[in-house]
Formats: sequence, C-alpha cells, structure tokens
Amino acid sequence: MNPITMQLVADKYIRLALEEDINSEDVTTNAVMPHAKMGQVELLCKEDGIIAGLQIFERVFQMLDPKTEVVFDVQDGDEVKNGQHLATVKGDIRVLLSGERTALNYLQRLSGIATYTHSVAELLKGTKTTLLDTRKTTPCMRIFEKYAVRLGGGSNHRYNLSDGVLLKDNHIDAAGGVRQAVEAARAYAPFVRKIEVETETLDQVREAVEAGADIIMLDNMTAEQMAEAVTLINGRAQTECSGNITKENIKKITDIGVDFVSSGALTHSAPILDVSLKHLRVVE
Amino acid sequence: MNPITMQLVADKYIRLALEEDINSEDVTTNAVMPHAKMGQVELLCKEDGIIAGLQIFERVFQMLDPKTEVVFDVQDGDEVKNGQHLATVKGDIRVLLSGERTALNYLQRLSGIATYTHSVAELLKGTKTTLLDTRKTTPCMRIFEKYAVRLGGGSNHRYNLSDGVLLKDNHIDAAGGVRQAVEAARAYAPFVRKIEVETETLDQVREAVEAGADIIMLDNMTAEQMAEAVTLINGRAQTECSGNITKENIKKITDIGVDFVSSGALTHSAPILDVSLKHLRVVE
Amino acid sequence: MNPITMQLVADKYIRLALEEDINSEDVTTNAVMPHAKMGQVELLCKEDGIIAGLQIFERVFQMLDPKTEVVFDVQDGDEVKNGQHLATVKGDIRVLLSGERTALNYLQRLSGIATYTHSVAELLKGTKTTLLDTRKTTPCMRIFEKYAVRLGGGSNHRYNLSDGVLLKDNHIDAAGGVRQAVEAARAYAPFVRKIEVETETLDQVREAVEAGADIIMLDNMTAEQMAEAVTLINGRAQTECSGNITKENIKKITDIGVDFVSSGALTHSAPILDVSLKHLRVVE
Amino acid sequence: MNPITMQLVADKYIRLALEEDINSEDVTTNAVMPHAKMGQVELLCKEDGIIAGLQIFERVFQMLDPKTEVVFDVQDGDEVKNGQHLATVKGDIRVLLSGERTALNYLQRLSGIATYTHSVAELLKGTKTTLLDTRKTTPCMRIFEKYAVRLGGGSNHRYNLSDGVLLKDNHIDAAGGVRQAVEAARAYAPFVRKIEVETETLDQVREAVEAGADIIMLDNMTAEQMAEAVTLINGRAQTECSGNITKENIKKITDIGVDFVSSGALTHSAPILDVSLKHLRVVE
Amino acid sequence: MNPITMQLVADKYIRLALEEDINSEDVTTNAVMPHAKMGQVELLCKEDGIIAGLQIFERVFQMLDPKTEVVFDVQDGDEVKNGQHLATVKGDIRVLLSGERTALNYLQRLSGIATYTHSVAELLKGTKTTLLDTRKTTPCMRIFEKYAVRLGGGSNHRYNLSDGVLLKDNHIDAAGGVRQAVEAARAYAPFVRKIEVETETLDQVREAVEAGADIIMLDNMTAEQMAEAVTLINGRAQTECSGNITKENIKKITDIGVDFVSSGALTHSAPILDVSLKHLRVVE
Amino acid sequence: MNPITMQLVADKYIRLALEEDINSEDVTTNAVMPHAKMGQVELLCKEDGIIAGLQIFERVFQMLDPKTEVVFDVQDGDEVKNGQHLATVKGDIRVLLSGERTALNYLQRLSGIATYTHSVAELLKGTKTTLLDTRKTTPCMRIFEKYAVRLGGGSNHRYNLSDGVLLKDNHIDAAGGVRQAVEAARAYAPFVRKIEVETETLDQVREAVEAGADIIMLDNMTAEQMAEAVTLINGRAQTECSGNITKENIKKITDIGVDFVSSGALTHSAPILDVSLKHLRVVE
Repeated sequence: MNPITMQLVADKYIRLALEEDINSEDVTTNAVMPHAKMGQVELLCKEDGIIAGLQIFERVFQMLDPKTEVVFDVQDGDEVKNGQHLATVKGDIRVLLSGERTALNYLQRLSGIATYTHSVAELLKGTKTTLLDTRKTTPCMRIFEKYAVRLGGGSNHRYNLSDGVLLKDNHIDAAGGVRQAVEAARAYAPFVRKIEVETETLDQVREAVEAGADIIMLDNMTAEQMAEAVTLINGRAQTECSGNITKENIKKITDIGVDFVSSGALTHSAPILDVSLKHLRVVE
Repeated sequence: MNPITMQLVADKYIRLALEEDINSEDVTTNAVMPHAKMGQVELLCKEDGIIAGLQIFERVFQMLDPKTEVVFDVQDGDEVKNGQHLATVKGDIRVLLSGERTALNYLQRLSGIATYTHSVAELLKGTKTTLLDTRKTTPCMRIFEKYAVRLGGGSNHRYNLSDGVLLKDNHIDAAGGVRQAVEAARAYAPFVRKIEVETETLDQVREAVEAGADIIMLDNMTAEQMAEAVTLINGRAQTECSGNITKENIKKITDIGVDFVSSGALTHSAPILDVSLKHLRVVE
Repeated sequence: MNPITMQLVADKYIRLALEEDINSEDVTTNAVMPHAKMGQVELLCKEDGIIAGLQIFERVFQMLDPKTEVVFDVQDGDEVKNGQHLATVKGDIRVLLSGERTALNYLQRLSGIATYTHSVAELLKGTKTTLLDTRKTTPCMRIFEKYAVRLGGGSNHRYNLSDGVLLKDNHIDAAGGVRQAVEAARAYAPFVRKIEVETETLDQVREAVEAGADIIMLDNMTAEQMAEAVTLINGRAQTECSGNITKENIKKITDIGVDFVSSGALTHSAPILDVSLKHLRVVE
Repeated sequence: MNPITMQLVADKYIRLALEEDINSEDVTTNAVMPHAKMGQVELLCKEDGIIAGLQIFERVFQMLDPKTEVVFDVQDGDEVKNGQHLATVKGDIRVLLSGERTALNYLQRLSGIATYTHSVAELLKGTKTTLLDTRKTTPCMRIFEKYAVRLGGGSNHRYNLSDGVLLKDNHIDAAGGVRQAVEAARAYAPFVRKIEVETETLDQVREAVEAGADIIMLDNMTAEQMAEAVTLINGRAQTECSGNITKENIKKITDIGVDFVSSGALTHSAPILDVSLKHLRVVE
Repeated sequence: MNPITMQLVADKYIRLALEEDINSEDVTTNAVMPHAKMGQVELLCKEDGIIAGLQIFERVFQMLDPKTEVVFDVQDGDEVKNGQHLATVKGDIRVLLSGERTALNYLQRLSGIATYTHSVAELLKGTKTTLLDTRKTTPCMRIFEKYAVRLGGGSNHRYNLSDGVLLKDNHIDAAGGVRQAVEAARAYAPFVRKIEVETETLDQVREAVEAGADIIMLDNMTAEQMAEAVTLINGRAQTECSGNITKENIKKITDIGVDFVSSGALTHSAPILDVSLKHLRVVE
Repeated sequence: MNPITMQLVADKYIRLALEEDINSEDVTTNAVMPHAKMGQVELLCKEDGIIAGLQIFERVFQMLDPKTEVVFDVQDGDEVKNGQHLATVKGDIRVLLSGERTALNYLQRLSGIATYTHSVAELLKGTKTTLLDTRKTTPCMRIFEKYAVRLGGGSNHRYNLSDGVLLKDNHIDAAGGVRQAVEAARAYAPFVRKIEVETETLDQVREAVEAGADIIMLDNMTAEQMAEAVTLINGRAQTECSGNITKENIKKITDIGVDFVSSGALTHSAPILDVSLKHLRVVE
C-alpha cells in the first residue's frame, strides 16, 4: 500500500482497530511480562491463495512500537501455499502478543478478498471484459478492501459518492428523464467525472447514448438484451454489466463483449484466507 | 442495540463509514436534486435468515438528517423470509439516496453473521454447550459483529484484550509454567476477571486445574483427549473447546459435555444476507 | 450548501474555527452577561457583490445554540447591494456576540470569492468556454471555496488528488512518455475517472490525443499555439487553458474555442466582500 | 514557527489540509510511480515580497514522509525577489508530488500576508504607532496568519475571545454603562487581562479613562475627534485606532500620536505571493 | 457554566470521561434491563459545603440521552448541608445507572474545590487582597476546576501559557536581565497581555517596577521583605504573593496589603465533597 | 507504565492536557527565547512518599520534542524522600519550560495517590485482605490513577462498566430478585466476567450465594453482620467490604477475614506529593 495513503487514510482506521482491542491494557501479557523482552514470531500461511495486506499487518505492530521489524518472504499479490513461511516479526514480545490479533484480522480478510477476486478474474482472462468491485464494502474497510481487489486482479469502480456519477432510476425520475439527468450531471459535476447511467430497457439505453453518457450500466438484462444493447451502443459509450456473475454465466457476458462486469461479492462475501502467527520465541 | 452503546461507541464508526462514502458531497444526487423533496423507500429482504442491525441501519439515515423516520415491520433477531417487507424509510430523498449504501452495508453484514450463527447455534440446541464468538472480528466492526452473534443465538467471549485473561502457551512460557502464569494473572489482573488457560495436553490440564484456573481451553485435542480432560477437570473449572466445528464433529463435542465451543468463522467468514432498498417514491 | 455535506464535511471545519476563537470562554461577554437574554442583530451588506455562505453563517450560531434563528432576506448566489439588509439573527445575546466574528469570517470570504468569480464568468458569457477553479484553495477551506465558485457562476475542476487524474510533465517523465502515462493511468485509476494530460508543445498535444486522453490542458501556450492545438485536437478531447486570464486576453481564448479556462485567483486572491452585524438589541 | 506551536497547534490543521487533498490516494502519481524513487524539486519565487511559512511548507512534506529533507536558502521574514531560488526539497518523488499543492497553498498565502503587512508597516516607520492585526482571519488559519503578520512587521492584537477583553457598545449597554462594564470585566476576567473599551464619543472616552480602562479604542472618529481624545486621555490609557487605513490618511493618525492602529485587511484581503515548485528530477 | 463553553470546550472532556467508563456497554445494566423503563433518582448531599458543577452533572446524563431531565433545588455556588436534597434526575433508568458514576465524579470534585476555596476566601474577607488559583490543576480538568474556584469565591489567574505573560528567573536569565525580559515580552506578546515578573529580591523588585512590569510576584519572601517591596512599588504595579498560605500567616499578608495571593492547593489538594444518587425508582 | 498502554490510551489524554495549557503558544518563553538553546533542569522531591508517573512525566516533554532526554535516579513505586534528586531533564530549554507544569501536574497527583494508597496498604500487611480502588476516579485520569494505585500497593477493582458485572439494589429490583439478576447476568455477560452482587442483609447474602454469585459485596454492614456473612458464605464466594476504612476500623475488618476492602478515597481525596523542577541551566 502506498505510504502516503497509509499515513493519511489507513492509519486512522488501524489505530481505531487497535483501540477496539486494547481499551486500557493487554491484561494477560502485562501480568506475565512486566518488562520488555525481545522475541520473534513466524507468519505462516494455512491455505492456498493470494496474500494481501502485508504493509498493514506490519503497520499494526509498528503503531504499538516503531522499532518492531518485519522481514517478509513474499510481497502483496503473490500466490502463497498452505504451510508457506510468509514473514518473521521481531520485537518486544509484548508488542508481538498485543498486536497479533488485529494484524491477523486485517491480513486474513484482505487476503481472502484478493484470493476470491483472483479466482473470478481468472475466468475473464483473455477476454476484453474487466472485473470491477462495488461500494458494497465493509464499513471502515473500503480503503483496504479496494486495495485487495486490485491485488487480486480486479479493477476499482468509483471509490465513493463524491468521485463518480452514477445516475440510477430514481435520479432519472427526479430529473425528468435520462437526457435531463445526464445534462444536469454534466452541468453540476466537476468536469473530470465520467457520467454513468443505469438502464433497464433498450429504450433507456438508446436515450442514454444519445444524451452522451460516458458509461452505460446494463442492469437486470438477459444475455439477449445485453447483446442488443451492446450492438445499439456500438462503442459510443462504455458498458458495464452489474450483477451476480457465476462460473456458469460468465462466458455469455464475455462473449457479448461487455467492457466491465462488477461484483459486490468480491468485498462482501469472500471468506478469509487462514494465516497464523506461530513459534514465538525469545531472542537475545 | 442499546442506545447508550450507540451514542458512545457505535456512532463514531458509523460516522467514519459515512465519511468514507461521502468525502465532499454525493455528486449524482446533488446534480439532479438541488432541493429537499420528501419521499419513502422500502427495505426488502432477498434471502431467508435472521435480521440484525436495524437500529444501525436507522442511525445511518438519522446521522444525515435526524428527521428521517424508519417504520419497522420486524425487530432485531427475527427470522425473515425472501421477499419480506422489513421497513419503510421516510425523509428527504437526498438522505435516502446518500445513506442507502452505508446503511445496507451494515445491515447485510450483521444479518449475515446472525444468520450463520443461528444455524450453528441450532446444532447445539438441547445440549449444555454454549456457542461463543472470538476476537477474529473485522477491524472497526467488533461492537456490531459481537452484537449480531448474540442476536443469532451465540454468546460473547471476552470483548478485547483488556477485559479478559487468556493465558496462551507463550504467556505460560514467559511466566515459567502454568501455575506461575495463573498466579501472576491473579496477582495483577483486576479481581473481577476470570482466568482462562489454554492447554494442549492432559498434563497441562491437570496443572491448570490445580493452579485454580477458572476456565480451561482445550486446544487442538482429539475427542478422546477432550473427554479425558473433562473427566479430569470434573467441574472444578469451566471448559472451552476452540476450533473448527462442523456439522460432523459437533455431536462429539456436545456428547463430551464441554461447556463452551468457540468459532471464529461466525464473524470472519459468514456470507452477507441480501437486503435491498426498493421502490423509492416521492410523497407529499 | 447541501445539508448532508454540511453534516459530514463542513461541520468539522466550522467547529475548529469556533474552537480557534474560543478556547476557554468569551471573557468579555461572560463578564457583562452572566445569564441568557434574548436579542436580535441585523446582517447588513456594505459592498455590492454576490452573497455566498448564508447556511454556513447560520450554522456557526446554531453550533453554539441550536435554538438560534436566522431569517434571511436573500439566498446564496443573489446579487446584493451596499446597505442592503440581508438577514436577522435572533437568540441568546451571548451566542450572537460569541459567534459573530467566526460567522462573518466565513461569509465575507465566500462572498468575496463568489463576487470575483462572477465578474470573470461574465466575461465568458455567450461563449462556449467554461470557467473553472483549481486546487489553489486556502487550506481547510476547499469545501467552502469551491461551493462559492459555483455560486459565482464558475464550475469546479477536480476536488482533490483522489478524484481526478491530471498527468503533468513529471508524471509523463516517470512513465516514459505521454502514451505510457495515459496507459498507466487508464490501467490503474478507477475507470470512472477522465484522464487529463498537461501539454506544452504541439507534439505533446498530438501524442496525448492519440493516446486517448479525455482532456488536454494547454499550458503556457501563446494564442497561436492554442489555436493550432484546438484545430489539431478537433473535438477528440476536451481542452483546458490554464493560466492568468485577464480582461485583455480573455477574448483571444474564447475566440479560439477552448472548452475550459481555469483560474487559481478565484480562490486564492479574491478580496473579501464587506458584511457586518449591526443594531444588536434586546427582545422580549 | 516555534516547534511546540507546530506540534500542538499547527499540525492538526496541516493534517486536515492534506486529508482535504488526498481522501483515498493520489491517483495520478500512484498510477505512474508504483514504487519509491528519490528526487528533488526547487522552490522558486515568482514575485517580490516577504517570505513567510517555510517551516509549514516543510512540515507538509514531512507529514507525508519524515525522511523528506528541505534545504532553505532563505528564512522566514526575508525579503525575496522574483526568480530567486528559495529552497530544494529532496525525497521520495511521490511525496514531492502529492504534497506540492498543499505546501504551496500555505506558503503563498502566508507570504502574501507578510508582504502586504510589511508594506503597511513601512508607512508607520519612525512613528510611535504600532500596526496591529484583528480577529478577521480566515477560519482554521489564525495560528498561521497571525504569525505571518509578525513576520511582516506587524504586531498581534488578542488571539481570540478567551485571551483579551474588548468591551463594545452592546457589552456596555448590557452592563448599564462604561463604568459598570469595566468593573464587571475587572471582577470577572483573569486579572492578567488588560481591559479595552470601544468608544465612539468623547464622553465615552472620558468615562472609560475614569473607569480605569487599560486601552481605549477610538472607533469611527474623525482625525479631529481622535486628537481631542488623545489629549483628553493624556497617557492614562493606551489608544487604538481601528479602521480603514490608507496611504492617504495614515499620516494624520500618526501625527495624532495614537499608540496602535489595527487593520483587518492584513489577513482578510492580502493577495497571495506567487511561489512555485519547478525542475523536479530524479536523483540517485 | 456558560452554555457556549460547555458546547465548545467542556463537552469533549465529558465525552472522554464517559468513554473511559463505557468502552463497549454497561454490561450489568443491559443484562437486567434489556428495554427502556422510566425512572427517577435523587441527588443528595452528604457533607456541608459549596455545590459546584450542576450543569456538568446534568450534561453527563443528557449526553447519554438528551431527554433526561434534571430538576435542581439549588444552584451552583450555593451553600449546601449534609442530608440536603439537591436535585431529581428523571429518565430512562439505564441512563440513570450508566451515567451515575461519571456525573458524580465531576460533581464531587468540583464541589470539593469550591468548598475549600470558599474556606480560604473567607479568611480574606474585608481585606483588599484577592485569592487566586494557579495552573496546578488536574490534567484535562482545568476548564472545570477554574470554574469551581470562581464559585468558591476565588479569582482566576491566567488560564494557560498562551494567555498570560509571567517572566520567571530563567526567562529573565535568558533575556539577560529583568529590564530586557520585560522589553522582549512587551515587543512580542499581544499587547492586551499584562506583563508579570517573578522577583526574589528587592533589587529585582526595583528593576521590575522601573522596567514597567504590570504585576510583580513576590516569591519566597519573608513578611518583612514583602512589606518593603510593597512600599517600594508604591502602586506602580500590582503585587502577587505566591506560596503556601495558612490560617496562621494569612493575616500578615493581608496586613501588608498585597493585591493578590495565589494558591495551588485550591485545585490540587482539595478533598471531594461527598454527594450521592439514591432512591432510584420506576415512574410511569 | 506499559508502552502499549501509553501509545494507545494515555497519549490522547496527555496531548489534551498539553493543549489545555498551550492553545496558541507559550508567549513568555517565545518572547525571550526565539531560538533553540540546550539546557537541563533537575526534578526534586519536596515531601516523603511513593513516586508514581515517571514515564508520563517524560512523555509530556517528548511529546513536545522527541529528542528530550530524561535520566532517572529512581523508578516508579520507589519510596522517595524530601530533598531527593529524582531525575534530570535535558533538551531545548523552550521545551523544558513549556512542558514543566503539565508534567508536574501528572507526577504530583499520581505520586500523591501512590503515597496515600501505600499508607493504607501498610495497614493490611500480613492479613489476607486485599486493598482495592473504585471507579471514583477523576474524569480523564482513570488510566493514570488506577496505575498509581497499583504502584502504591493496592489492587484494581473493575476498570469500567464494560468489563465487570456488579449487581446493585436497583439492578436486583429490575430483575425481580437476587437469583433472577444473577441468572440474567450469567446469560448476558461475556462468560469471562465474574458476577458480583451488592448485599445489605444476611438474607440477601444467602440468596446471592445460592444463586452462584462469584463475589459478594457487604455494604453498610456492622462488623458483627459482616462476620456472620463471612461465616454464612463459607468460601463459596469472594467477599468485598466497601466503605470508609479508617485506621480505627481496619483491624475489625481484617479480623473478620473479608477478602477485599475497597476505598474511593485512594483516588478521589489523596493530596498531591510535592515535586518540583529546579536549577534550569544552559548546557553546551
């Protein structure tokens, strides 16, 4: 993760996560270890997958003690195997113990997302269709989860409501039609924004193209409708297919030649990748 | 969720989640709706499960505008069905649109956890064994996720490192043995804490009982070892079995009579429950 | 200003501004007014211009006491005249006195920006060229200053470094050329971002068009070069002229038919518009 | 700027300013520079003036990466010339690019204020009259702007409502008269505060002197009235003339021998001083 | 306490105090009271003294639930007696229970300070000497403790290092002498600050008067030295005697005619005043 | 104090305490010392007692400047004597002066608590009774004050409302009886919490024991009642005597064999221990 993003954005969440886990002190550790003692512990992988979030894992420990050192054998985005040694963490044993759970909670979740994203992205390989995430992220985890999607081979849709324009049915209703909505957006939004319109019928698709939409989302359409829509659009706008992609239906979508396919499951339903800190020992 | 917890604890995360999604403004909504207009939208369930997080869902909208009203047809912990109408949200349409994603992100995740927890808790029904969560929660989501576990029929293990004592192998090593570790904990920790010891062998179990541990965790033991351990402990301490419970092995554990079984998957790997806001319309 | 933006974004700056002015108490007011007394005070305009920031002015007082009422005679964006009565503020006199300076500091600055922007936007009236602001805003004032620009008849360029792509010379150098830079941006940036390239020569303009840039900034070019560039681009990308526009050179730019002209002076060098609170009196 | 003030006061605003400009990441820079690369860039002056805010300029970069180095050729308060080289910034090029705008936004504004203040202070040279600023500062910029005033040769009036007593007409009305107001203030305010009274007539001046006011502000008086007031006060209190000073009227004021003259324009209407970062290049 | 000070200053400490006491939830209360139930509880005094902090007591409960009502029988600064009924608190019983300890912790401490201050102020009654507090306050309690001193009949010395000038021996050494220090302070500090100098010898007193110090602190002097100092100063500056005042030595100080006497013990060593919430009962 | 607790918990209060004392700058110091100058100052003890809070004292200075060095002659918990040299602080003299008061405010208060706790704990020496603190701590000081209690030889009761269960009369009323309250708590609270019940009569004691309470508080009982209660409980629960212990009554309590005795006075009414920074001098 970019160090500037870490400083300005990620750090505040990481600190909150640590405060969630330690609101006065780590009672157990302090009871048995009243003083600093140097040690190390090994980060092991317990499932095959894509590793993601190593700098965040490291940051957790360094926020507790900047002198903690992490030596990595892998880097973010690497494929890792069950049993593989990923890193060694060295420092005050109290820090290793008190930071363990929070560090692993980030790493296991981000790696789970990267792993799942990777498996879907593989299905799109060789096609012109790009895999996108959505805003269906876990609260307070977006900066991390969208990063994990990229590591898994996906691309990011807009980051939030401020940096992308997506006109949905009710925006269109409020504006009085597709054309009016696109015009209102073009007049109001910072001019560096592309304008995306959600459509459910071919009529709406036609209207959106004519209004000059930059991107047209094809929502809840059958494969046949989508194919017609793509033909109708004919390169005048980019196309996004949103919805439940499965191994079964993915081929249809890519055959149609939709530019983008977005999936909320990448961030909201990926199971974690199991990682673990083992073999803590004192070092002199 | 208790309103005091909401005020003092949950609110700061909810606000961060909203700020994550709106860092300057909701460009799309503001482009087409320059002024307030009253409307309502329906919360629908799209999968069977246990609903969890309704007050948090409501709070998201009320944080944007305290005048937003939510009328619920169900309450937290209720079983809900695909297609069921759950609630109506009424207010400034800009608020309904700008808060939608964040509100749903909380609700779908918490309901997913409650639903999954419920399915596991059902397996323990009629036994003396209680289902527990762990600290393997999503960062910045613990207050919400542990609440969802309770709604699903699970119980909470310690909240964090400050409010429970759990002596693991490296704590025991640091103290010089099980007895010494328990004594150190008893001397140091606030006296209202129970003291739990993680054990991997029957010798450790024996030592822990004799040292006066309040709870003994049986880690990585076979069903046979666990049975022996429970016999050996003979009610002198509570017992917790930690690890991967499955529909297959659950009966063995409950037959043995372990008091508690804890599962990280409740919070780290439950898929979401699909919920959706539909049918937005203007109301006078 | 949109109430959601106020809640989530503006409020934190307004609160800081108040804390800047009152770090323990308003000593003078508390010395002479130990108890609440209701009063009202009149907001008067002391120069001709465009008024901007009325809700922010109101919010300052309501943050001190939500019961404070402001009755406006004008609304944001209106032309106002020297001597005109703009609003009446009613409430606890201590609130009126303690909030006065902070409320006016916002209002006078935002109105100054709107007024200055308006005078420039007038010069572009009837042409196809749109006036843009820049990121040369006062620190901690961007959300307010960009809002004032819109009220004055300008449009907003990107809000910040996260929501727009602008490839400058050193980005291009780092990437190894215009084409490579555009490709890297397209591969990396969320796909809803338009890609803008800064160019200084016609060769760069050509390269940028061919690489598929969405917007081409013409930097430090003479009117003749700009005209050539616009001809060369021929509608395949939008064009932005950045730099010091004056009443003298503005006609040349609009004659050339550049799409956008951006000006840092709108936010960094507009003088304030003089406004004042007068005639405080007790009301029963 | 004093390093303690930087740590305890300025840092929080600087961080907010950076967060304003980077809410997830610097997309452009990260697209073309995925990894750290060392470089340097030159700070050049583009107008004659007084430079102010160099440590704040430096702090912006060091907040993004503490290893960034800035080598200055000048120091705060120096007169600088168009074209002059002011400093070299060395570090990770991503930091140089991502911090540039925020660093310059501070530097250009503070130097603008110092430059303008200097030009007014020059008019008072050789007289006994001291130039003061006011509380008409830009919200969230007071700590910086008052510092720039000092660098330009001005002095600071009170910092905020908590650390100075200034009894205005409505305070006087509330207290029931000048004497009562001064007495109330003396009884209530921490005894280290001087007490200033705003007067509009000679009667009020007389009352204020007799009540023992430490400072008497002469508001909206003609030169003749001010002269009479100064004679009447006869050294028993300090005198402050508030209001629009111009090159034309300044001589009258200094001839009268008023102790202080305060000007809001120093902070609210000074145009920026143009400074720029140029010639970024990779260094090994 | 002034409501603006409450909003802008006190609230953040009160919130932190509540978060200190409830970091996830009030487990006990939530276990037995899953739902809201209205009740009331009585605030009783258990010692004679001066009551101080009633609005802060109220604010604690209203921060948990703004609908909580407190009906007071007394007001801040009143003398109260052991056994006296002070107030009734009405609201959700969960709020009454969860806020109790924090509310009382403020009230008992502030009332303790007011009571102790009152007992010292009584000794000065009828003399020209005013009782002052110091900056020896409990961290994060200054806004509250200085308020309690006023309620007890004391006056406030400077609030903090930013709003008062006090030149001590090492400041004087650094400046090169008393005269130089006073001059440096007068040149640098905002002109509304009085300048106080700490002196230990009559020579220093003389130097300070001649340098134009506004206030002279007589530190560690005998009664005889102080008397000489006061004679020497002869009204040209105010005088402050700092140090351990006792019932025994107080008469000497007041006889000498020192203007102010300051005491750290008012805020750092006053014992609490015992107050208690009793007779909680359900109301319909 | 444990460095992780310092980072995650204590630092935020220390920073607030510094901001309380410096809201713009240390005017006096900056007036006479415009530039850094290295110096040192000595920490001296002015009363006999137990020293507590040395790391916090150090942290105050290091928060202003991380290069400040403190060399200690003693460590937390040591007995110290009037006149004893405790430490030398070295660094930028401006830091030594600006941090002095805040650093001493912490140190004097914590040492006062440790000293007073020690004097009470001595009375319990050789008995089986342990001395406990309460939640009657100064707002925003709990993490520090409970630490000081441990250094003085006391033990900590629960930290806050979230990490311990204590059923008082109104909880019992709400639940419908002692048994019901204990059952509700056991069902609801995280299972690692011990359950404590407050009792006022022997009947309640009996009911609590039978309900399986882990700890029974004997409230407002005579020595005779307590003795009966202890006999009745007979080791089936731990016992806590809460209330005003004095040198006179302490022997009765220890003779009865109560396990714990808790005292609010440890934290709310201990006078400070006088410590002082002296002999500041320049070092090269």
